[in-house]
Amino acid sequence: TIASPAVAQSMPEIKWRMTSSFPKSLDTLYGAGELFVKQVAEMTDGKFQIQHFAAGEIVPGLQALDATSGGTVEMCHSVSYYYVGKDPTFAIAAAVPFGLNARQQAAWLFQNGGNEKFNEFYKKYNIYGFPIGNTGAQMGGFFRKEIKTAADLQGLKMRIGGIAGQVLQKVGVVPQQLAGPDVYPALEKGTIDAAEWVGPYDDEKLGLAKVAPYYYYPGFWEGGPMVHGYVNLDKWNQLPKAYQAILQNAGHAATNYMITRYDALNPQGLRKILASGGQLRPFSNDILDACFKATNELWAEIGAKNETFKTMMADMQAFRNDEYFWWQVAEYNYDTYMIRSRTRG
Amino acid sequence: TIASPAVAQSMPEIKWRMTSSFPKSLDTLYGAGELFVKQVAEMTDGKFQIQHFAAGEIVPGLQALDATSGGTVEMCHSVSYYYVGKDPTFAIAAAVPFGLNARQQAAWLFQNGGNEKFNEFYKKYNIYGFPIGNTGAQMGGFFRKEIKTAADLQGLKMRIGGIAGQVLQKVGVVPQQLAGPDVYPALEKGTIDAAEWVGPYDDEKLGLAKVAPYYYYPGFWEGGPMVHGYVNLDKWNQLPKAYQAILQNAGHAATNYMITRYDALNPQGLRKILASGGQLRPFSNDILDACFKATNELWAEIGAKNETFKTMMADMQAFRNDEYFWWQVAEYNYDTYMIRSRTRG
Repeated sequence: TIASPAVAQSMPEIKWRMTSSFPKSLDTLYGAGELFVKQVAEMTDGKFQIQHFAAGEIVPGLQALDATSGGTVEMCHSVSYYYVGKDPTFAIAAAVPFGLNARQQAAWLFQNGGNEKFNEFYKKYNIYGFPIGNTGAQMGGFFRKEIKTAADLQGLKMRIGGIAGQVLQKVGVVPQQLAGPDVYPALEKGTIDAAEWVGPYDDEKLGLAKVAPYYYYPGFWEGGPMVHGYVNLDKWNQLPKAYQAILQNAGHAATNYMITRYDALNPQGLRKILASGGQLRPFSNDILDACFKATNELWAEIGAKNETFKTMMADMQAFRNDEYFWWQVAEYNYDTYMIRSRTRG
Repeated sequence: TIASPAVAQSMPEIKWRMTSSFPKSLDTLYGAGELFVKQVAEMTDGKFQIQHFAAGEIVPGLQALDATSGGTVEMCHSVSYYYVGKDPTFAIAAAVPFGLNARQQAAWLFQNGGNEKFNEFYKKYNIYGFPIGNTGAQMGGFFRKEIKTAADLQGLKMRIGGIAGQVLQKVGVVPQQLAGPDVYPALEKGTIDAAEWVGPYDDEKLGLAKVAPYYYYPGFWEGGPMVHGYVNLDKWNQLPKAYQAILQNAGHAATNYMITRYDALNPQGLRKILASGGQLRPFSNDILDACFKATNELWAEIGAKNETFKTMMADMQAFRNDEYFWWQVAEYNYDTYMIRSRTRG
C-alpha cells in the first residue's frame, strides 16, 4: 500500500510482499531475493519495505506470476520459463535451449531492446519485469548409465520440465515431472533414468551422484538463465520514479550477487560430487547436434502458430549470432589458455 | 558538501564532483560514469547530485585518485592499475596478466572478501572503492608484422603500459608510452611496431588496422578488468547509510551497463576492423607460455619486496585455480558448442 500520493511525497512509506518461486533450501536463488529486499530497504532508509516469502508460504512457486498479476502480492521473484504454458514466448526472457550465455542474455535484454520488448509482451499479464539474478550455465544432470549417442536417448525417462523437456521429447526422451525431494528415490529405484537440477552447488545437496553417477555437461537448455522480478503493473505505475529506479538498481546488485555466489560456490560443490562417486561426462556432439536440430524444429512449429514467439526468437538468434562472432575471439581464447595453464600457475 | 547533518536528515541534499580517468571519446567507459550519476540522481529524487567531469576537465586522467585522496573532488571513476607506481598491489583489484575473467573478478571481489581486503589496503590512500564497470576480455592490439614465436618479440616496440608492460619487457618487448592520438602516426611511420588499446568497439575508431593490420588476441594482460569508483574516505564516512547503499547499487547497474554495452557493440567494431583490412591472429602458445612464465617471475620479484602484493596475489591465484576448475565444465563447453554451431542456427 502507498501511504500517501506520489505527487505529494517522493519517498513515501510503502510495505510490499514478494512471493518467491524458490524454497529457502535453494539458498543462492532465494538468497538473491533476500539481498534484493535488503538493498531496497537500505537505500530508502527503511521506508520501502518488501517482505519476502519462500515458495509455498503464500502461493506455490509456480503460481508466483498469477499471484502478482492478480494483486495477491505486489511482486514476485521467479523465472519466466515457468510460464510457457501461458505462452512459450515467456521462455525467451530467461533461457531457451542453445540460447545466449549469461552475459549475452543481459546484453540482449539491456542493450538490444529485449527488456522493453518483453515489457510490451508482459502487459497483457498486468506485470512489469526486470532481471534479479542469473545462475550461469547449468549442468546437464545425473544419469544412471552413460549415454554416448543420440540413439541412447530413446525411451530415457528424465526429470526435466518446460520447453527443454519438449526438445528432449523430440529425440526420444520421456520427460518426467518430479518435485526435488522425489528425485533421489526415483533414481535409486530406477523409476527414472536421469534428472537435471541446477549446477554443482545445489546439485550436490541432493546427493544424486550416489544413485546416478554420470554427471553430464553442459546443460545446453540453460546456458545462462535470467531470473526476474515481476511487479503488478498497477503497483509499478503508482510508484514514485525514485522507487522504480531503486528497484531496478537493486535488481542489478542482486543479479551480480546470484551469479558471483554460484561462481564462488560451484567449485566446492563439484569437488564434493566427484568425491562422492560422481563422474563428469560431456554430452557428445552426436547428442548435441540431434538436440540442436530438434530445438530448431520446435521453434519453427511454435513460430508458425505464435507471431510474438517467432519475432522474439528471431531477434534473440540474430543477436546470438553476432555475440558468438565476437565471443570466440578474446573471451573464449582467454578462457582456453587459462584452462590449459590452470595447474601450472 | 552535506547540506545538513546525517543524523538529522537521512536523505539530505548533496552535491559532489566525480572526475573520470576517461575522455568522452571512450563513450562506453565514460558512459558508464554517466549512467552511474544518473542512477544516483534518480534514486534520490535529485537530492544527491554528482557532477561528472571527463579526464582533463579538472585533473588529468591519471591524477583522478590523487584528486580524490586529497579532497579536490569527492570521488573519481578510474582503473586501479593506473596506480601501480604507488603500489603494484593496486593492479590486482582491476586485472593482472593471466588473472581472472570478468565474472570471476566480480566473484572474487564480492564473494571471496576481495573488496573488503582492498578497502583495508585503500585506507592509507584515504579512499573507499567499489566496482563501476568491466570491459570484458580485451584484445592484444595491432601489429605491423606477424609475430609467431616468443623470439619475434625481441626488440618489438609496443605501446603498452603498466604492469603488462613490465611483463612484456621481460620477454624482450620495449614498452612505449603514447597518448591515444599519437598512436596512429607512430605506427604509420614505424616509430613503434605494435599498440594495444581496448577492444574492437574502441579500437576501430583509431583506424589502426590500416597501418598495422595484424589484430592479435586475447589481450592476456586484461582478461576482465574491473573499473572502480573511489570516494574520498572522509566523504564516504560522512554519508548517510542509505546514500552509501545507493552508490554501491548504482555501481552494480553501471558495471552491468558497461560490460553489456561492450558485448553488444564489439561485434560491429570487429566487422568494421576486418572490412578495413584487419586480420585476426591468435597469440601462439609459444608466446603465451613465455609471457605466462615471465608473469610468474615478476610476481615473485614484486612479492619478495611487498608483503601485501604477495598475499593478495596468492589469494587471487588460489581463487583463479578454483574458478577455472569449474569454468572448464559447463560454461566453457556451452560456449564451445555454440561457437561450433554458430553458422548453423
